[in-house]
Amino acid sequence: MTSIPAPLGASINRQWRLAARPQGLPVATDWAFSSEPVPEPTGDECLVRVLHISLDPAMRGWMNDGRSYVPPVGIGEVMRAVGIGRVVASAHPGFKVGDLVTGAFGVQDYAITDGRGVTPVVAGAAPLTQYLSVLGMPGMTAYFGLLDVGRPVAGETVVVSAAAGAVGQLVGQIAKIKGCRVVGIAGGLEKCRFIVDELGFDAAIDYKSEDVRAALREHCPDRVNVYFDNVGGEILDTVLTRLARHARIVICGSISQYNNQGPARGPTNYMALLVDRARMEGFVVFDYAKRYAEAAQELAGWLADGRLKSVEDVVAGLEYFPETLLKLYSGANFGKLILSLGDVAG
Amino acid sequence: MTSIPAPLGASINRQWRLAARPQGLPVATDWAFSSEPVPEPTGDECLVRVLHISLDPAMRGWMNDGRSYVPPVGIGEVMRAVGIGRVVASAHPGFKVGDLVTGAFGVQDYAITDGRGVTPVVAGAAPLTQYLSVLGMPGMTAYFGLLDVGRPVAGETVVVSAAAGAVGQLVGQIAKIKGCRVVGIAGGLEKCRFIVDELGFDAAIDYKSEDVRAALREHCPDRVNVYFDNVGGEILDTVLTRLARHARIVICGSISQYNNQGPARGPTNYMALLVDRARMEGFVVFDYAKRYAEAAQELAGWLADGRLKSVEDVVAGLEYFPETLLKLYSGANFGKLILSLGDVAG
Repeated sequence: MTSIPAPLGASINRQWRLAARPQGLPVATDWAFSSEPVPEPTGDECLVRVLHISLDPAMRGWMNDGRSYVPPVGIGEVMRAVGIGRVVASAHPGFKVGDLVTGAFGVQDYAITDGRGVTPVVAGAAPLTQYLSVLGMPGMTAYFGLLDVGRPVAGETVVVSAAAGAVGQLVGQIAKIKGCRVVGIAGGLEKCRFIVDELGFDAAIDYKSEDVRAALREHCPDRVNVYFDNVGGEILDTVLTRLARHARIVICGSISQYNNQGPARGPTNYMALLVDRARMEGFVVFDYAKRYAEAAQELAGWLADGRLKSVEDVVAGLEYFPETLLKLYSGANFGKLILSLGDVAG
Repeated sequence: MTSIPAPLGASINRQWRLAARPQGLPVATDWAFSSEPVPEPTGDECLVRVLHISLDPAMRGWMNDGRSYVPPVGIGEVMRAVGIGRVVASAHPGFKVGDLVTGAFGVQDYAITDGRGVTPVVAGAAPLTQYLSVLGMPGMTAYFGLLDVGRPVAGETVVVSAAAGAVGQLVGQIAKIKGCRVVGIAGGLEKCRFIVDELGFDAAIDYKSEDVRAALREHCPDRVNVYFDNVGGEILDTVLTRLARHARIVICGSISQYNNQGPARGPTNYMALLVDRARMEGFVVFDYAKRYAEAAQELAGWLADGRLKSVEDVVAGLEYFPETLLKLYSGANFGKLILSLGDVAG
């Protein structure tokens, strides 16, 4: 086993643990900020110093009890999160000290891993944070959700909600690359300007100040062929009134409903699926794991060509995790939300 | 132009017209029972004596204003309905007196038609009422909805609601022919016994007396691969909790919601589509018109082999239209609901 000396002050592993199952939005008492000595890898394990942590809307769902596509985080456990980090000690034959890796390292300074679900990162191709956004899960989610589930055809109209978010910004740009008319729904003038002026969307709808139904009529004269839904709730219901025949609705998330107390709001207008011969389909990005490399290669090519931009909203400091996570649910983040730890230079 | 003498007492054409748009269930004042002299065909038209009228859940939707897959019935117009009848006068080159035909003849004794949407019937293969059920729209709906949209594979579990209704009884039997495990949801012990004992379903769930969620757990140990939904509402929501991975939900109707005042109930549990990588898809049977003959041939073959049964619930008398239609929404009908007029022998 090889190891490198712990950085100054790094003998302590700080951790955010789930203290209670939230009712609605997570509050301070739902979390416990604890610390323990940095653990030593044993057997075939390696120790990873976490550099950046991905904050995802889906994390709210992982905090609930009940059946989902992954088991819930247990009370008292370190909160689950995907991150990028550097191997600082290794007894694992596949990883050596100094390697950059991504994996579900949790919301903590250091993680012990047996290598399962850990992917090496060849640094240099992109800033490290992009391995948590366009070259990470949001990129994979946008790529496979739009192209495999939504199946847009050049000339069709694609609408995406949370359009300035981690996944939404990529969905819209990929749809543009594929020759579609793209309309983004986002909250606030700044985000709307950004997706049109910087990302090249054809139009934006500010759900906070506009009548979304009227705006869809204006911006989608040929109705909506593909709707990539990140938000659920009232916006999903409104888009259902504007579907084109044989439309595809990609169910990626329903962030407007994650903090509901009581049942989620179902799409009242779902019978539009019959009237418009349309389908609504969900997916889980993990199912595409065997094709991640293919997607990453194509996304990296578009990044290199300047056809694709990726915006990250980076907040520094593990200690700010609880309030930073809440930015997702108030819509305060701009692009992919990332919590950076010390040692950001990687 | 050829014609035959009108039958005794047939100089009057009785008609049910839409008098007002219903709020909730249609009531007496929503209808007007009028009569006029039997019209004479002119130009290329022909006159059809209606023999049997198909009563369909979708008729309630046609009475509402607003965008749907067909225009609404106008106030004062004869209520739209599909029927089977005999040509009694014809100036149309394609139809001669004595021909049996199906078409949207409306809720009346006689209809004038220019032949558009009118299909000749080769009588003798089956009782006339079956051309409005297994060999008519319910048959086409079950066949294409199940096979083209639901795409069941032998060994999979298929669940159908309104399982003793016109479409449901056929969906379940076709799924059995295709080698699936079939569970029907119906209201009342008699219907449940019927679909199991007479139609060969593997199990039935009585939604009026059973806990549907618990019964689905019992009868669908491998969860639900295809759900053919005729009812919407709470039952759709419950089946969503029991989907298998990559399940298909066929949206055929939502009869539990047709008489709602105010918005329909949306499927609160629709995020199961994501968790289970499932899809929910609507269809309109008219889109399959070019393949009706193919389906009718296969369905007739199954009927002849005794592999498929068709049950019709026949009520005699045009004058009983309003109260007979309501049987659909209270679940009082047993199989395909048909209103028969005089001259039933055809």
